[in-house]
Amino acid sequence: MSRDSLQKKLEELRSLIEAELRRLADGRLPDSFYEPVRYTLAGGGKRLRPILVLLSAEAVGGKAQDALPCALAVELMHNFTLVHDDIMDRDALRRGRPTVHVVWDQDTAILAGDGLLALAYQQLFRNPPERLARIGSLFSEGVLRICEGQALDKEFESRTEVSLQDYMEMIEKKTAQLFSVSCGLGALAGGGDERSVAALSSYGKWLGLAFQIQDDLLDVLSPEQISGKPQASDIRRRKKTFLFVHALRTASEAERQWLLRMYASERLPEDAVQRVIQLFESLGAMEQAETLVEDLLAKARQELGSLPETEGVSHLRELTFALAGRRA
Amino acid sequence: MSRDSLQKKLEELRSLIEAELRRLADGRLPDSFYEPVRYTLAGGGKRLRPILVLLSAEAVGGKAQDALPCALAVELMHNFTLVHDDIMDRDALRRGRPTVHVVWDQDTAILAGDGLLALAYQQLFRNPPERLARIGSLFSEGVLRICEGQALDKEFESRTEVSLQDYMEMIEKKTAQLFSVSCGLGALAGGGDERSVAALSSYGKWLGLAFQIQDDLLDVLSPEQISGKPQASDIRRRKKTFLFVHALRTASEAERQWLLRMYASERLPEDAVQRVIQLFESLGAMEQAETLVEDLLAKARQELGSLPETEGVSHLRELTFALAGRRA
Repeated sequence: MSRDSLQKKLEELRSLIEAELRRLADGRLPDSFYEPVRYTLAGGGKRLRPILVLLSAEAVGGKAQDALPCALAVELMHNFTLVHDDIMDRDALRRGRPTVHVVWDQDTAILAGDGLLALAYQQLFRNPPERLARIGSLFSEGVLRICEGQALDKEFESRTEVSLQDYMEMIEKKTAQLFSVSCGLGALAGGGDERSVAALSSYGKWLGLAFQIQDDLLDVLSPEQISGKPQASDIRRRKKTFLFVHALRTASEAERQWLLRMYASERLPEDAVQRVIQLFESLGAMEQAETLVEDLLAKARQELGSLPETEGVSHLRELTFALAGRRA
Repeated sequence: MSRDSLQKKLEELRSLIEAELRRLADGRLPDSFYEPVRYTLAGGGKRLRPILVLLSAEAVGGKAQDALPCALAVELMHNFTLVHDDIMDRDALRRGRPTVHVVWDQDTAILAGDGLLALAYQQLFRNPPERLARIGSLFSEGVLRICEGQALDKEFESRTEVSLQDYMEMIEKKTAQLFSVSCGLGALAGGGDERSVAALSSYGKWLGLAFQIQDDLLDVLSPEQISGKPQASDIRRRKKTFLFVHALRTASEAERQWLLRMYASERLPEDAVQRVIQLFESLGAMEQAETLVEDLLAKARQELGSLPETEGVSHLRELTFALAGRRA
């Protein structure tokens, strides 16, 4: 399995997903409700989660086509969380485009998010009756856990300190959960047995944890042209990322106090942002993040080892290597 | 079938629903997410929609118990719309209690609403596999139509005039849809055939339209102690209710211009509110609303005529008479 073959596969699945997403809310009225929904769905992105659904279906020997309703449901649900999270986080940009509550207004964004979740479930119900109960409860429990994760993330805003354990619990719910649900749904839709569903759900969890810690890392490493959002925006918003949590654990008392003071202030001046980055660097936070990402991706690969070797499994393995080097 | 027997039946079903609702989010963490969910579910109310689900199941010869997951799903979904609508409408009170975004904050209310919708679907998936696809698509299409209705209602805020047809389309989606879905789901869960499902869905639609026009009417007629919200609050917020729409159609040109001017102003002084009520009265708007409510309830009863006479049908018929005289 070569890198080129993976890229070709990802492109193929992505076009399939894009075509379906475009059709979903096409022509529905009123525009005041569906226009922001269509705008959101046309926002592009890697479509990583629905791709995981399709690859997981193939990994257990099923057809990608059979997992398409689950793939669309996952992407719609993901977009629902993005639209609502952007309101809560007061984010003005998403993938280089103004967010829904900025283009329209907040009420419109609340409704658009609600609509995306309803559309997600509509897709889910296209699954064959005999699998619906299992698929539906996995999905719904996933939505609840993601909401729990977002609530924890908001809680962190008003706390000064966050332990590594608290942080890991939060990202497991807020980010890793959806990766896990994606792979689990794909395995179910592909007709996998309980063992495969469990293995792929775990694979998704490790992948999702790695993905979030990478995100925390890319926030300081990746320039705006590549990431589509201002560099170090997590620091500017004083978010409790992996880098921050690691720094708190390893800093000297003086550094700790300084960092806590910076994160308690209303607004960070540009030179303070740079000094925070330097502190993270000097405490080895980026290095530590990279090591952890590698470990988590290795754990993800390990889960695949328990499955019969199919082309889908091979693609999922290759994907962990490709993600290791991602820049955006 | 006597009025007393209906009241006893309603009380019995209401306790059943209340007990289940209390258990739903019990003990789940984090509190920052589930506390507002529990607060919302403890808010009481008539529980009319889930009761319609249960009575509709009995109307087609099924057991109320079999329709309980659908009943809970409907009530949870209703509460999801209330929490999000209250944010959009900046409402500070709901059933005499401060709204979620007032007790906590707006972000918490967005998340709580999202959670209520996920919990609703979780209940829905408890239905037997062979009925899930039909139940799920009816429910999801219902959620979308309710969102469409809310979007239309918001659109009306920025329009000066609203035709009777526009108004009826809006309330059919925003209010009547959920009544219709409730009865349709009940019929499905009770094992009714397609004809019964169609008849009960129509029954629910007429009932819902009547209910909304009554709501518009009670806004000016019902004192705060009974309705749980300030009298004439629709007028104060210059909402395009049935009374307003009727007044626009029947007023003299001078009255029309005055009314449009009042509704275009930022804030209505108390004496203007009273003069609007007097204008509605003099144009026969309240009378017209009462007549229309009677007509719609009669149409609802007519739908029941096509069903075999069961105790459930009898309860649903009695309910239309009981609703005719409601004060809150």
